[in-house]
Amino acid sequence: MQKKVLIVHAHPEPTSLTRQLVEVSLQTLRQQGHEVLQSDLYGMHWKAVFDEHDFPSRADPDRLSFIAESGHSYLGGQQVADIAAEQQKLLAADAVVFQFPLWWFGMPAIMKGWVDRVWAYGLAYGYQNAGNRYRYGDGAFKGKRAMLAVAVGGPARDYSPRGINGPLEQLLFPITHGSLYFPGFDVLPTFAVYGTGRMAADEVAAARQAWRSRVERLFEEAPIPFRPQNGGDYPDGHVLAAHVAAGQSGLVAHIAGPETVPLPRPLERGA
Amino acid sequence: MQKKVLIVHAHPEPTSLTRQLVEVSLQTLRQQGHEVLQSDLYGMHWKAVFDEHDFPSRADPDRLSFIAESGHSYLGGQQVADIAAEQQKLLAADAVVFQFPLWWFGMPAIMKGWVDRVWAYGLAYGYQNAGNRYRYGDGAFKGKRAMLAVAVGGPARDYSPRGINGPLEQLLFPITHGSLYFPGFDVLPTFAVYGTGRMAADEVAAARQAWRSRVERLFEEAPIPFRPQNGGDYPDGHVLAAHVAAGQSGLVAHIAGPETVPLPRPLERGA
Repeated sequence: MQKKVLIVHAHPEPTSLTRQLVEVSLQTLRQQGHEVLQSDLYGMHWKAVFDEHDFPSRADPDRLSFIAESGHSYLGGQQVADIAAEQQKLLAADAVVFQFPLWWFGMPAIMKGWVDRVWAYGLAYGYQNAGNRYRYGDGAFKGKRAMLAVAVGGPARDYSPRGINGPLEQLLFPITHGSLYFPGFDVLPTFAVYGTGRMAADEVAAARQAWRSRVERLFEEAPIPFRPQNGGDYPDGHVLAAHVAAGQSGLVAHIAGPETVPLPRPLERGA
Repeated sequence: MQKKVLIVHAHPEPTSLTRQLVEVSLQTLRQQGHEVLQSDLYGMHWKAVFDEHDFPSRADPDRLSFIAESGHSYLGGQQVADIAAEQQKLLAADAVVFQFPLWWFGMPAIMKGWVDRVWAYGLAYGYQNAGNRYRYGDGAFKGKRAMLAVAVGGPARDYSPRGINGPLEQLLFPITHGSLYFPGFDVLPTFAVYGTGRMAADEVAAARQAWRSRVERLFEEAPIPFRPQNGGDYPDGHVLAAHVAAGQSGLVAHIAGPETVPLPRPLERGA
């Protein structure tokens, strides 16, 4: 079945690994018969900085509160055009893929600014203008899938379970869990290519092939089993119940382990 | 003894909590006789997006590699003026304080872009043009202190050890460990004010007072005991030795526990 996929990417150099992998995404998805939407943030000269110019019609002209003005603009249908256009793409998409080089263990500023500006109050948080009622597995983007594909300069062992940088998936938790699962996306495990500073041609080819396989299974693969806010694990909507992930704390406690929830077997899920 | 402190801050609204706490920083540090440098990122219209315009003199005019061009510009003394000016402030400072609202569990894009652009190859990474020889406790900023002060919209319990967002200090690890300890800063525990969306006057006053106490002890407080790369815990410079934090993995393994390294008692350290 034809789906719509939005690719949001952030590298200005057409021959960069990031952009090569974007080409793989486009090619693979089109070959599968899907429709592809793109946000080429450098190419669009995306405005990264969230500021007063994003609120031409103010709820309070005297004091700039981002939350209040974001809600006023979004709920009142008075957003600036570039923000509204990205939200339309998101709402149309069945899946969103973010492709970027890992800079200081996060997104390049131009992509962070895409999240800062597009994730409006009433849409990505405060959904239905109902505070935190809908979040973490619930919300405007429920039923859609998201995935990160990152180009990492350093070696894989620096990101291994006991590697000096910390494990990649934990470093990206503020994005995967905090920015994507929060407004309702099912988030797939991150795809990473390491050591991108010095890659031989055969390594680039291998990376392209590995990424192609992930893209082909975008609608089949099992998401990271983050715990939903409204599924019973957080009785007060804030803190894990004592019997859930008993004895654990920190980021990993918010991922269901095989002992509590059976991990879905990807190949059995169907497209 | 008089010190120099750089305050980097990112909120355009002068009456915001972030900016009120910036005022407390300035006042407190000046009362202590310190010299204060400032980078008011919104006020400066800081360029957030790292792009080709940051490299007027290119090592390779045909293909944009950020690492290669950053090194070429920094090591060749050919950086753009705004980046060089921030690096001068950093090198002059004995401590750097970052004050910002927490947006999607990280820095606002304008501040992320300050890191992306100012953290040059040869300075913040690839120090001495020696690859990863100097990092995590070593590097250009060794001997300096850094601290984050964040204004958080949500309630504190969402950031508690088993709170749904994850513990704040783990969410900020890509910044504290990955961006500040990496180039050599001693990083102090993060200061946070929660529930900033709806604060009564007495709560604001309490937050100002709590922050004042932290600023007063900026040069006395014990830093987070991140494990240095070159101190023996990472024999190959990449992965923890088996006997270090035995049985642990993930972000927390990179913080020395009281069982392995005695936590310094802050009040005994002296100014």
